[in-house]
Amino acid sequence: MTDKTEQDRVLIFDTTLRDGEQSPGATMTHDEKLEIASMLDEMGVDIIEAGFPIASEGDFEAVRDIAKLARTSVICGLSRANFKDIDRNWEAVKHARRPRIHTFIGTSPLHRAIPNLTQDEMAQLIHETVTHARNLCDDVQWSPMDATRTEHDYLCRVVEIAIKAGATTINIPDTVGYTAPRESADLIRMLIEKVPGADEIIFATHCHNDLGMATANSLAAVEAGARQIECTINGLGERAGNTALEEVVMALKVRNDIMPYQTGIDTRRIMNISRRVAQVSGFAVQYNKAIVGKNAFAHESGIHQDGMLKNPLNFEIMRPEDVGLAETNLVMGKHSGRAALRAKLRDLGYELADNQLADVFVRFKALADRKKEVYDDDLVALMQDQTSPEDDRIVLKSLKVVCGTEGPQTADMTLAIDGREQSVHATGDGPVDATFNAVKSLVPHNARLALYQVHAVTEGTDAQATVSVRMEEDGYIGTGQASDTDTVVASAKAYVNALNRLVQRRKKTKPEAEVKSAS
Amino acid sequence: MTDKTEQDRVLIFDTTLRDGEQSPGATMTHDEKLEIASMLDEMGVDIIEAGFPIASEGDFEAVRDIAKLARTSVICGLSRANFKDIDRNWEAVKHARRPRIHTFIGTSPLHRAIPNLTQDEMAQLIHETVTHARNLCDDVQWSPMDATRTEHDYLCRVVEIAIKAGATTINIPDTVGYTAPRESADLIRMLIEKVPGADEIIFATHCHNDLGMATANSLAAVEAGARQIECTINGLGERAGNTALEEVVMALKVRNDIMPYQTGIDTRRIMNISRRVAQVSGFAVQYNKAIVGKNAFAHESGIHQDGMLKNPLNFEIMRPEDVGLAETNLVMGKHSGRAALRAKLRDLGYELADNQLADVFVRFKALADRKKEVYDDDLVALMQDQTSPEDDRIVLKSLKVVCGTEGPQTADMTLAIDGREQSVHATGDGPVDATFNAVKSLVPHNARLALYQVHAVTEGTDAQATVSVRMEEDGYIGTGQASDTDTVVASAKAYVNALNRLVQRRKKTKPEAEVKSAS
Repeated sequence: MTDKTEQDRVLIFDTTLRDGEQSPGATMTHDEKLEIASMLDEMGVDIIEAGFPIASEGDFEAVRDIAKLARTSVICGLSRANFKDIDRNWEAVKHARRPRIHTFIGTSPLHRAIPNLTQDEMAQLIHETVTHARNLCDDVQWSPMDATRTEHDYLCRVVEIAIKAGATTINIPDTVGYTAPRESADLIRMLIEKVPGADEIIFATHCHNDLGMATANSLAAVEAGARQIECTINGLGERAGNTALEEVVMALKVRNDIMPYQTGIDTRRIMNISRRVAQVSGFAVQYNKAIVGKNAFAHESGIHQDGMLKNPLNFEIMRPEDVGLAETNLVMGKHSGRAALRAKLRDLGYELADNQLADVFVRFKALADRKKEVYDDDLVALMQDQTSPEDDRIVLKSLKVVCGTEGPQTADMTLAIDGREQSVHATGDGPVDATFNAVKSLVPHNARLALYQVHAVTEGTDAQATVSVRMEEDGYIGTGQASDTDTVVASAKAYVNALNRLVQRRKKTKPEAEVKSAS
Repeated sequence: MTDKTEQDRVLIFDTTLRDGEQSPGATMTHDEKLEIASMLDEMGVDIIEAGFPIASEGDFEAVRDIAKLARTSVICGLSRANFKDIDRNWEAVKHARRPRIHTFIGTSPLHRAIPNLTQDEMAQLIHETVTHARNLCDDVQWSPMDATRTEHDYLCRVVEIAIKAGATTINIPDTVGYTAPRESADLIRMLIEKVPGADEIIFATHCHNDLGMATANSLAAVEAGARQIECTINGLGERAGNTALEEVVMALKVRNDIMPYQTGIDTRRIMNISRRVAQVSGFAVQYNKAIVGKNAFAHESGIHQDGMLKNPLNFEIMRPEDVGLAETNLVMGKHSGRAALRAKLRDLGYELADNQLADVFVRFKALADRKKEVYDDDLVALMQDQTSPEDDRIVLKSLKVVCGTEGPQTADMTLAIDGREQSVHATGDGPVDATFNAVKSLVPHNARLALYQVHAVTEGTDAQATVSVRMEEDGYIGTGQASDTDTVVASAKAYVNALNRLVQRRKKTKPEAEVKSAS
């Protein structure tokens, strides 16, 4: 018999890199995936779903490299219900200390109709594929996609088959974000009661947020006996996204009195990874997002402020520092020294070696010269600013843009390309269009601009703007970010960064049309 | 006895203009409040909480003018537990066809400690204030703030007192966003079972989203017997916000099989008001927000697309047109005529008189000349662009900005101020800073820039940028928005718009520090 502690442990399965990365426009680069995986590993995520190895060479390589890199997390890949998918998956995850194969098939009437399988034929396929996966790997997860719309009898039947074939985790996906808490709990309870062998495996819950109830549905499933929650950072994912990791983890922590379950997550790392995922995915977090929104811990109204001063518990059920928000937002300026910068960055979750600190300090000083007050968010932008000049074939040397009410707008730009300076005069509709046209005429390319976003980092007209750019060309992807107090300069730098990464990147084959999926 | 239909009717109480407007930075102007109220009225919101009349002159005037304007919605104002607040509230709401007075007090131990009242003293105060309110108005709502953290015995006692004193609606606020669905349901069920007179009034649920469960908590309360949901558009509100109107309404519609309750909301108006609230509040909606996020109805992965083609029900539990998203995103261009524009705008929810259409058509043509393809979102931006030149004292005549890597950036600007053209050359750190400095030197003012946001309206480098600006000076508030393919020009126009509104605006007294509140 499992002891109480183990029974109350809820495993956190993060699928930011698989289901999250499937959001239209959220495609991440190889390096970004490795970086996020390593942050997930460090924060105590039990299982990282790293990708869908057969979807593309890029997905395969990401899962394989994350498997090699992982320290404590189980590394999982997704595969459809066929041997080729599962074999390819194993080739990628087998490098992990603790690998897992995840395989799935759509079991609802609507989904059975797509491959046109009878109930019996699909049951047989499930038996064969799970057996095959288990012959490769001791840790096998199986998912009946669209479980919440599958007939209960059939769901019990196929779950039993998967367990007998060796699945160690059974995941119950609410693929369309359709369920509600009571129904979510009833489904897990029914499976545990009715399916032989259910007590020997772990049930997982995988919810989507289409009706805004993913968090409550996941927690209801846990109360009914599920012991693994599938989720993503910031609730990233297709349509309205997946269950947000930060919400389920903090709800279990704050309401441990009525939900006495434990996770292994170091919650103080939540803000940092939330910011990083927002940046690499290009999916900004709204101000009023639970836990990680800019306003999640803020108070405006008079009574609240009054109450806050008397007792923060009046209106705060968690402390900002519990999720890794620095308690104070101490302003830095041009007189701040190296030690102060190091201490501040440590508070923000960045541990730097001396040579890294030296580089950051130079950029900090340059920023402090232009901006009176340097806030935490400015420093985070600085840290996340991509600069790896040694690898860059293209470097922005100078830019002068003329814009305004009398078009066309013009850009005079000098780039160093492989060390040789070249200049151009270009026009466009707006300063950004002119700037991008200038780059294009110096470095001809057919890349499509898939994303262009501007965020003000802090308040005020002298705020830094952070610009994110994502470009795609023949299946290659390049992303770039840059921050500057001049939006146009930040745009040019981000564009050049993206282009550098595009020309460096190994070819990432285009996902075949029918390969990707979300369970 | 109430008939079945009436029993299954859930009232929608929208507090976007009160609890939503309390979000730090979400302050709306008088005209914006009236516009939003009229949209809420038209979409079938049962009760509109229009503000907190005693908080400021501005709040009072907004509630009073909304009361005069409302056609079918009940108009409600908030007041604390004292006669002065309640009298002031009545002065504002009494102009409505159907007025309601809402009064509240914090009943949890933490909140009782603030005014330092014993249980008995607070009970007496509740009796007196609710009685007073009911003597003024037949429709009285009472809320025990922080109800979810109030002792059950005391909660039952004060709810009974409020009912006996004449409250017709009892609202149970989860002020700190602390509860979970089962607990939320249990609380309502307990009150209905234990409190004498509970069957004669309506229970309301008012949830905050700090742990991401506001929607599920509200619906659980309805299942337990609550018949009013308090919510806001986009889930606007302090910290992580309130229950999102669009989520509870669509969940009740989509899952009517397990939650057989009706609302009076015309769901096809959801997208339009969502966009407008996002714009006037400056709180953008994240892409992966349920129902109203840009990606809520989008699909990327191959299997999904395949499934979508075969049967949209595979991955879509609601149709985009159910929430007012046009089924197709038909692109308009410079050859599109007046009739096509009118038809397109009608699809997007804008009914225009001929003279309005003529004005919009001119601006549409100007845009189509600059931009190859004009998308739905471009048209929405066009419609929402503020232009009321007849009232404007300041008009942007021309702007030329030079920016780039060699600072300082410069702006040459000509404004017509009260009809007289004046020009200036200004510098700044970045093109936006230079532009704003130019305006400032032509129109000296001490306004603080409280918000500056840039949104790309559509994709591509020739996308329109929409800039939102909010300025505050001595308690006055001015907001401006403008769209242009040139970000810098959009910024200048938005700033000038905000300044125009600031100079026109009647003085809005600053809210007294201790007056505002959220229940």
